[in-house]
Amino acid sequence: MKKIVSFLLILFVLVACKDSVDSKETTKTTTKEVVDPLPSWNDTATKDAIIAYVTDVTNTESENFIPIADRISTFDNDGNLWSEQPIYFQFFFVFDRIKEMAKDHPEWKGEQPFKAVLENDMETVIKSGMKGVGQLLMATHAGNTTEEFDAIVKDWVTTAKHPTKNVGYDKLVYQPMLELLAYLRANDFKTFIVSGGGVDFMRAFVSPVYGIPSEQIIGSRIKTEFDYNDGNPRILRTAGVDFIDDKDGKPLNIQKIIGKKPVFASGNSDGDLQMMQWTASNKHKSFMLYLHHTDSVREWAYDRDSHIGGLDKGLDQANKDGWTVIDMAKDWKLIYPFEK
Amino acid sequence: MKKIVSFLLILFVLVACKDSVDSKETTKTTTKEVVDPLPSWNDTATKDAIIAYVTDVTNTESENFIPIADRISTFDNDGNLWSEQPIYFQFFFVFDRIKEMAKDHPEWKGEQPFKAVLENDMETVIKSGMKGVGQLLMATHAGNTTEEFDAIVKDWVTTAKHPTKNVGYDKLVYQPMLELLAYLRANDFKTFIVSGGGVDFMRAFVSPVYGIPSEQIIGSRIKTEFDYNDGNPRILRTAGVDFIDDKDGKPLNIQKIIGKKPVFASGNSDGDLQMMQWTASNKHKSFMLYLHHTDSVREWAYDRDSHIGGLDKGLDQANKDGWTVIDMAKDWKLIYPFEK
Repeated sequence: MKKIVSFLLILFVLVACKDSVDSKETTKTTTKEVVDPLPSWNDTATKDAIIAYVTDVTNTESENFIPIADRISTFDNDGNLWSEQPIYFQFFFVFDRIKEMAKDHPEWKGEQPFKAVLENDMETVIKSGMKGVGQLLMATHAGNTTEEFDAIVKDWVTTAKHPTKNVGYDKLVYQPMLELLAYLRANDFKTFIVSGGGVDFMRAFVSPVYGIPSEQIIGSRIKTEFDYNDGNPRILRTAGVDFIDDKDGKPLNIQKIIGKKPVFASGNSDGDLQMMQWTASNKHKSFMLYLHHTDSVREWAYDRDSHIGGLDKGLDQANKDGWTVIDMAKDWKLIYPFEK
Repeated sequence: MKKIVSFLLILFVLVACKDSVDSKETTKTTTKEVVDPLPSWNDTATKDAIIAYVTDVTNTESENFIPIADRISTFDNDGNLWSEQPIYFQFFFVFDRIKEMAKDHPEWKGEQPFKAVLENDMETVIKSGMKGVGQLLMATHAGNTTEEFDAIVKDWVTTAKHPTKNVGYDKLVYQPMLELLAYLRANDFKTFIVSGGGVDFMRAFVSPVYGIPSEQIIGSRIKTEFDYNDGNPRILRTAGVDFIDDKDGKPLNIQKIIGKKPVFASGNSDGDLQMMQWTASNKHKSFMLYLHHTDSVREWAYDRDSHIGGLDKGLDQANKDGWTVIDMAKDWKLIYPFEK
């Protein structure tokens, strides 16, 4: 009899507890249905950490409150706001341009690395190394005006398609990151792109995609010259590197252009590590967010050994210093907007 | 008799006309008392031109309407938002710093151009030319971290006083230009500073003065290096010029950093001419505004032959192309905020 009473008592307690938990979860779910700012994120610790941070630093009663003027957030682009496999999308632009321009350059048929591009021989392109890739970049990015280059990229992005995903490259942005950008802006953060990609390449089309104006897009640049041109001034893009916005270049460019240390930094590769370190040293409470590509089914899975977007030292420091790491496979309900 | 009738008729017409004009002026004045966005500007053609432009391009019914995202305005700083005589204020900072730092540099007593600064021998300083001035600039601007330099400038600006005006340098900003900046922002223009002055020098104190955040301040820069420093990262300012934001450098930096052509440009010297030319080539209706220093009583009068803020070719092109030129003596009711 005692055993039965004990059993019933335990059962009662368990049921009561479960009700209590259910009740809380229902409340939680109901609240989220109304205001969830990150609907494409699963309800994991990652999402909780982001929301807890934003809620804390925007609360005027909190000791961690950050004035609006200091709410600077910086986002890497390739592999962080859109995909970057099998190669950075800007390289697909380069290859498409080489093929397009080849009709005016018959000599390219016998000249590397152009020949390899025309023959879709990616192995030889990759083997041509920095020198070869640099030649391809300059051939396709220099020798025009800023307005001409802008028009060329705009034209490309409306027609080109990703080789395996078979949609336009601008469709391969991450829906959860679009929501994160919008959530931060709704909380008076300024959102900046700080990317190793070409700044004028990005500016040609990403503003409406990300909701980020051109003056908040920072990237790598080639050299330019001003030409008054008898009253029709133009800016000429010349064959030379002006600034590489990667690794050390990221905090340096953030200081040069923004002039403030970010409080929120988001990236996915070792090229973002110095930006993360710089952000982590902010006197305000800061948030460092690494995207770990773990989803070989819906996107791609790669990290330490990848030639594109390698994440090795950054992952170690994120783990050591308690930075937040997005596990793409687990944390994201969907990847691209067209999956909605 | 006929003559008397004619005389009375003419008198009648004149009086009627005058009444009509008075009536219009009264209406105008009444309206302005309510909404005048530029109260420190006299009611001249210059003020009218500014207001007519802003009214036109922000009117959705106008063929000249400019979307908000394209309302980029760029302002030179020295001699345009604040005074620049008898020398650029940043040079007073340099001289004050040399004197401050001299206690750790006993060798400067015998070494030019430092000796000349310590002896207030401006003639020798000027004769030392670009090389000498460069030495002074690097000695005072490099060799520290961005945070240290920021603190040094902040400290200087709270204590230093202009030699003849006898007020802090940050008090020598132009009240009419503060009103113009605010007026443009009230009409959804983004206001940028694009100055030959040092960007980190300006950022240390001008944001609250002008209402312009650090990320909208563009200027000249010295070279920098990122130093992880065992987890206390810092950016080191090193002795070398990274970018001179003057003449051709202005449109180039505008393209690099803003990525859009301005629709409104404001400057006061030939160093601003290329920025004006670039702005004049905007497909949107644009506004080029030169400030002509004509007020030897309240401020300074100088133009074509001045070593500081020389305005020669710019004035010619403004006259030729019909750009708006502020005649400081005639167009401004007052110069500095403390005159209010």
